[in-house]
Amino acid sequence: MKPIANLSQIDIDPSVPCFVPLGGSGEIGMNFNLYGYQGQWLVVDMGITFADDTTPPGIDVICPDISCLRSVKDQVAGIVITHAHEDHVGAIHYLWRQIQKPVYCTAFTASVARRKLGEAGLLDQVPLAEVLPGSTQAIGPFELEWVTLTHSVPEANALLLTLGSVRIFHTGDWKLDPHPLEGAHYDDRRLMELGELGIDYLVGDSTNATVDGWSGSEAECHSALLRVIAEQKHRVAVTCFSSNTARLSAIGDIAHETGRRISVLGRSLYNYLQTAKATGYLKNFPDLVPTEDLDYLPRSEQLILATGSQGEPRAAMAKLAKGEHPDLLLEPEDTVVFSSKVIPGNEKKLYRLYDLLAQKRIHVVTEQDAPIHVSGHPCRDELRWMYRALRPTHIIPVHGEARHMIAHAELAESLGLGATQVTNGDVLSLSVQAPKQVGRVQTGRLGLSGSSLVPLSDRALSERRALADGGLITVTLVLDKKCRLVSEPQMQCVGVPTGEVELDSVTADLALAIEDILSEQSSRVLQSDELLREALQREFGHMLRQWLGIKPRQLIQLVRI
Amino acid sequence: MKPIANLSQIDIDPSVPCFVPLGGSGEIGMNFNLYGYQGQWLVVDMGITFADDTTPPGIDVICPDISCLRSVKDQVAGIVITHAHEDHVGAIHYLWRQIQKPVYCTAFTASVARRKLGEAGLLDQVPLAEVLPGSTQAIGPFELEWVTLTHSVPEANALLLTLGSVRIFHTGDWKLDPHPLEGAHYDDRRLMELGELGIDYLVGDSTNATVDGWSGSEAECHSALLRVIAEQKHRVAVTCFSSNTARLSAIGDIAHETGRRISVLGRSLYNYLQTAKATGYLKNFPDLVPTEDLDYLPRSEQLILATGSQGEPRAAMAKLAKGEHPDLLLEPEDTVVFSSKVIPGNEKKLYRLYDLLAQKRIHVVTEQDAPIHVSGHPCRDELRWMYRALRPTHIIPVHGEARHMIAHAELAESLGLGATQVTNGDVLSLSVQAPKQVGRVQTGRLGLSGSSLVPLSDRALSERRALADGGLITVTLVLDKKCRLVSEPQMQCVGVPTGEVELDSVTADLALAIEDILSEQSSRVLQSDELLREALQREFGHMLRQWLGIKPRQLIQLVRI
Repeated sequence: MKPIANLSQIDIDPSVPCFVPLGGSGEIGMNFNLYGYQGQWLVVDMGITFADDTTPPGIDVICPDISCLRSVKDQVAGIVITHAHEDHVGAIHYLWRQIQKPVYCTAFTASVARRKLGEAGLLDQVPLAEVLPGSTQAIGPFELEWVTLTHSVPEANALLLTLGSVRIFHTGDWKLDPHPLEGAHYDDRRLMELGELGIDYLVGDSTNATVDGWSGSEAECHSALLRVIAEQKHRVAVTCFSSNTARLSAIGDIAHETGRRISVLGRSLYNYLQTAKATGYLKNFPDLVPTEDLDYLPRSEQLILATGSQGEPRAAMAKLAKGEHPDLLLEPEDTVVFSSKVIPGNEKKLYRLYDLLAQKRIHVVTEQDAPIHVSGHPCRDELRWMYRALRPTHIIPVHGEARHMIAHAELAESLGLGATQVTNGDVLSLSVQAPKQVGRVQTGRLGLSGSSLVPLSDRALSERRALADGGLITVTLVLDKKCRLVSEPQMQCVGVPTGEVELDSVTADLALAIEDILSEQSSRVLQSDELLREALQREFGHMLRQWLGIKPRQLIQLVRI
Repeated sequence: MKPIANLSQIDIDPSVPCFVPLGGSGEIGMNFNLYGYQGQWLVVDMGITFADDTTPPGIDVICPDISCLRSVKDQVAGIVITHAHEDHVGAIHYLWRQIQKPVYCTAFTASVARRKLGEAGLLDQVPLAEVLPGSTQAIGPFELEWVTLTHSVPEANALLLTLGSVRIFHTGDWKLDPHPLEGAHYDDRRLMELGELGIDYLVGDSTNATVDGWSGSEAECHSALLRVIAEQKHRVAVTCFSSNTARLSAIGDIAHETGRRISVLGRSLYNYLQTAKATGYLKNFPDLVPTEDLDYLPRSEQLILATGSQGEPRAAMAKLAKGEHPDLLLEPEDTVVFSSKVIPGNEKKLYRLYDLLAQKRIHVVTEQDAPIHVSGHPCRDELRWMYRALRPTHIIPVHGEARHMIAHAELAESLGLGATQVTNGDVLSLSVQAPKQVGRVQTGRLGLSGSSLVPLSDRALSERRALADGGLITVTLVLDKKCRLVSEPQMQCVGVPTGEVELDSVTADLALAIEDILSEQSSRVLQSDELLREALQREFGHMLRQWLGIKPRQLIQLVRI
């Protein structure tokens, strides 16, 4: 089906609910979903994703392209954020201006959203309404219930959408953690009631649909972390995802249990600790020791919490590993604990950190060595539990790469449920009978470049790769009316490694060559900027390849006076 | 210890053997080792490594910096290559000119080396002597014995160096494969004899020193691959490392056993098949079906061998996954088998291939699903076996990243052996008593840029990153003697995404700004290229940041006439 630029151009029956994923289906990251009903739209989540090895240089943050919404902007009833992770709330300050409608979320998420909006100077403009977990509300024609689940961040909300006679359960990110340590338990009674009531569609998290068993509990993680830390005789530095309040809570308790004091390195940990305490979590978390006072404590009483579990080069853990942290120098026999998973793509970065630490004789403990991390997403047995409890007629896998969504659909089918594959841009009508694709809208990825969101296919971004691979050479010629050189040609090279070739001799040779080239051209060529540039580029290309073995990008400036 | 530029400046006792790793210690890749004795040097291996996420853009291949050898070039007795992998022989055509001495290796390795030297036009210049596995020879003062081990390529040779009263066993890459399928068994009798004789130093492979157990046999791999392929009803495409002749042999046999015919996609597989056959391996490998004749065979009789087990974008498997291979289109229900490991750093690239294949409903089987790959390097039990057989006094771990070499040393110490950590550039004297670091030479990494080897720290290469991140803007001004503009300023942008800002309006504004900037400068500034450039760059920087949110690199051409 050919994608259409504007959602308004798709023929949609307003009496039938519809679903349009614009981000997060076919990828892990930048979740952005739309539900439509009675001519109105509800946005569910506004997430970002981070650059990887396919992203053009100079781009770190990526947002979904939601330009198809422009034509229906006035019909957006509101924006709902299910929970506080970057791939669900991280684009709010980049994309809100394109929608300009009220935002609804629970308190912890609101606190995170407010920080982002504040940094972008949008706090006064965005109507942000806090809702209570478990509450119901109507946003335009959308009857909504916030159903409490568990995840690796407090307040993971599923949404029950009651749209006429159709009930849709949008899971958001979830797992079944019997001992979540911080925050509410998942509302299993309500889930079973909803199963009695009857769910038509479940739109759900596929992240771990290829993984057997259960994701495990934060409480098990606490026990394993306690065992690891209790064994250590010297300083221990732990890194984990900053937003995982349960993990922070476990580490706080372990400090008590092992007679250690906690000091924190890294802004994002401070921010999340503050957010958690401000919204009623981490009530027993110990007072922090200022980093500058660490020296007063014996190493055996120090427990450091550091950002950078993915080896991010500017975060605290990378600086500790390199011995470049301004506030703390790890010493031989200290222990570093990675209470986190390795996000695919970060393997090499982390192996380098492990190596740097090993070279300094610092012990490294990862989830390979002890069960000190649990995932926040449902494994196959949890999916089965949920589908038996909710008994949905039809599953729409989202939140995963293709292989995760396919495994999710196959698992649903093995339980006798219907399953439909979607991809970003699909417009699905969700009648009581069966889902049906009624159209497709344009979507895509926009990279944050300075203050602009730029399509990743932008020509300027692909030019960057060519610049990066070969560098650039500029040649400036000033010609008079008779197309004679008025001054010495000027040359500059950027990013052109010359090895053992002398750049001065290359420049001198090029200057000589220019005289020759000019003398060989017809007056037609000489008088056309375009033709003359082409002729010069052709010759320069040959010469550069011969001298350097590479062909840098050429920029030829012709000035005629 | 401060590194010194020339090996000749290090005070070395010529009567004591010495060891100098120049590449491969502290990294997996670009092995380059030196042994010294009686004022002469022996080069062992000349390997490359491949670019990773830390490498500057535009560099794919990396060689060790061996400039410290310049001053002792005439004292190099010869070059020995242990086996045919890229990290041992891959730099021969890039680095040989710096040494210009005879090369010694066994037949299979020689065949691979000749192809490389041929491509570089060096075949006539390089004296390449084939030696027999198990043979002994003298290269200058170096008494050498080639000891046969097993690995994931035919003819993996360890070297026994007898230097006066000191015996050094240089393992090269090895494992203990009881059923190597192709090529000789490891020479366990000779290893035990050497144990009787007494080995002073073992310089050895650390790759799998963190992995418990045994690496497994190619024969087990054959069985598992047979089970996987026999189950399939449609086309099967297998990818593996092209140099793994045993794996190719297994796949050849499986074709017989499952009634399939083999077709090959990818140049490197052709090359290695040819090399293997020319040197007496793969005698039972079936005749290939030309790809263009595949259509005459039912899908169930097709077995495709494809290059690209690491997801290399230009190799056959990536093209098959994208549906872009000119000769073959995989179909739903076909099966793709990755008979290989994921080399760290390639995870995301491979996950993307798995996804593309899953989307086309093509089954993917990896070593996660079945034991269809074995490593070519010794795990901990193999290291123990070897050290019990050889009973070396002292272990020097090489061929590994820091954590592998540390684990290797700890394992050796747990067996009561001595162990010494080295890193590239260390100069170690190996007396009968004990090793001793006597100096350090400069080493490093050189990137292949066109036909030059350039230090990765070259300023031009770091400029490339800045170009890639922000793009570049050139401004050309032609000024007369009175520093007045002679013509309109010219501007060009490369790699500068402008988002919703009109570039023409930026250009017009900059042109206006230039007039202002010129009018505000003192004549001292106006008459100095340097000061005027600085003033212009400062102003442009502010303006560009305001308009675009980024600061591209600026190149200002000032032409005075």
